[in-house]
Amino acid sequence: MDAPFTLKLPIRFSHTDPAGIVYFPNYFDFCNAAVEDLYTRALGVDYAKLIFEARRGTPIVHASCDFFVPSKMGDTLDATVLLGEIGRSSIPIDIYFHAAGVLRLKAKLVTVHMDLDTRKSAPIPDGLRARFDAYKAASAHWSPPAKPGEKQE
Amino acid sequence: MDAPFTLKLPIRFSHTDPAGIVYFPNYFDFCNAAVEDLYTRALGVDYAKLIFEARRGTPIVHASCDFFVPSKMGDTLDATVLLGEIGRSSIPIDIYFHAAGVLRLKAKLVTVHMDLDTRKSAPIPDGLRARFDAYKAASAHWSPPAKPGEKQE
Amino acid sequence: MDAPFTLKLPIRFSHTDPAGIVYFPNYFDFCNAAVEDLYTRALGVDYAKLIFEARRGTPIVHASCDFFVPSKMGDTLDATVLLGEIGRSSIPIDIYFHAAGVLRLKAKLVTVHMDLDTRKSAPIPDGLRARFDAYKAASAHWSPPAKPGEKQE
Amino acid sequence: MDAPFTLKLPIRFSHTDPAGIVYFPNYFDFCNAAVEDLYTRALGVDYAKLIFEARRGTPIVHASCDFFVPSKMGDTLDATVLLGEIGRSSIPIDIYFHAAGVLRLKAKLVTVHMDLDTRKSAPIPDGLRARFDAYKAASAHWSPPAKPGEKQE
Repeated sequence: MDAPFTLKLPIRFSHTDPAGIVYFPNYFDFCNAAVEDLYTRALGVDYAKLIFEARRGTPIVHASCDFFVPSKMGDTLDATVLLGEIGRSSIPIDIYFHAAGVLRLKAKLVTVHMDLDTRKSAPIPDGLRARFDAYKAASAHWSPPAKPGEKQE
Repeated sequence: MDAPFTLKLPIRFSHTDPAGIVYFPNYFDFCNAAVEDLYTRALGVDYAKLIFEARRGTPIVHASCDFFVPSKMGDTLDATVLLGEIGRSSIPIDIYFHAAGVLRLKAKLVTVHMDLDTRKSAPIPDGLRARFDAYKAASAHWSPPAKPGEKQE
Repeated sequence: MDAPFTLKLPIRFSHTDPAGIVYFPNYFDFCNAAVEDLYTRALGVDYAKLIFEARRGTPIVHASCDFFVPSKMGDTLDATVLLGEIGRSSIPIDIYFHAAGVLRLKAKLVTVHMDLDTRKSAPIPDGLRARFDAYKAASAHWSPPAKPGEKQE
Repeated sequence: MDAPFTLKLPIRFSHTDPAGIVYFPNYFDFCNAAVEDLYTRALGVDYAKLIFEARRGTPIVHASCDFFVPSKMGDTLDATVLLGEIGRSSIPIDIYFHAAGVLRLKAKLVTVHMDLDTRKSAPIPDGLRARFDAYKAASAHWSPPAKPGEKQE
């Protein structure tokens, strides 16, 4: 398993605002894209099938983000995805957005594994949990880039 | 001054996702709308003129949200805006999204008063600070609705 | 029946692009909002119930727009909705966006009345057709504002 | 020159609506992405520099789209870009969205080469016009996929 997974994000005209920088809610949309691709491309779990066939969803119960450096049209960001402490149904996800070795923002989502028919949280199935564990192990070597003005640990 | 300011948000088809509930990044877009209207409608500071004439912006350095109850098309949310501890240039803003007396989500933004030409934070002008203070005083009587299953304080 | 229906659209920071004007796909989002409100507020047909209870949808088979005058943050547009020649299941809708008596853009959508379970077009129910007819009759007095530089007919 | 240019578009959760299909204004956003990449990746003209350094923009004066087949999360669309009859400053662009040899929708944009400082249309510079001509010549061999139920010409 090639981990951690990094999604390349070309910043487009449409992502930016009259000040010429990315409109901040778009970063949360990028987070959702990164989670989707984490499942499909890194964990090997087709996210569309998870929702429409297995009827499992991953609604967000918490989202937060700290913004260090703005990005503008023409930039390309790398969004690197790390898993936090997986619970019974809770899946915390950290997403580091960086470019040229500098951390531009850091987001955190807490998602919940949910049964879409009962609309209740559900225990993470064993097969999926094993993949999360393997991903965490394979990501352990990675350390996030430093913020601007911060010495790399 | 009529405070705190509440923005009415009709939830539309376009805000919702294949699970039939609001796609979470849209809530941050709603937050931005609420801040815009806080300036223009509650504080009496035209937000468009602030940006394009006074060349002052309010970029976000932190955004977070806790989600308690999903919302679906046809719902109407009230987004009530409170100000936190105003600093030299830092303006923390709490936004409570509620319907029928129940808190559905709570967001927090930290914005910075910025000079758009130098791209540096700038001290909040005295006139604007006085309006923030008046708004806080006039909002002090308001207490947020309880989360579901939580006893109202 | 108060017709034609006009939706007020305050142009926000989030609607605009690095050139300071509305990013054009947002106008199609506004069109969808105008259609939603046409049903719910002007025709008295709750659009959310139409979809989720009656299981009828109105997918778009054609959309087009001509843009005459750009709009910027702080503007307010009026979007006035007219119905075209209603077919068995086809519903053409013209939307005029104007401000201060000047036409800024004109959009046309062709929507189809569809059974969401069979995913096939369905004949417009008689009750709904009667409302469309009444709306058309009540709108007949309205004539669209002129484009800039065009003499009002 | 490798032409015509095709942009791959993975359809995400965020692009789709409560009916499970792409919300139609998103197709116009995809069109804008395709035009951006046409300039940067196919014509070799950095679109961000065109706007922010050369101060030239390409606002849309007309946009239209015919929708034949809906798309859902997990699909990948190919958006193939053809140029129409280039005028003094007018640049018509046809975008064919297809998958597995079937045309799903066809969009047309008319953009105008504009001086962003004077906000007036400007003649297309000779160098850019030569690239458009080369692109058209190199695209001439391509014929669009058929609509469903239509015999390929």
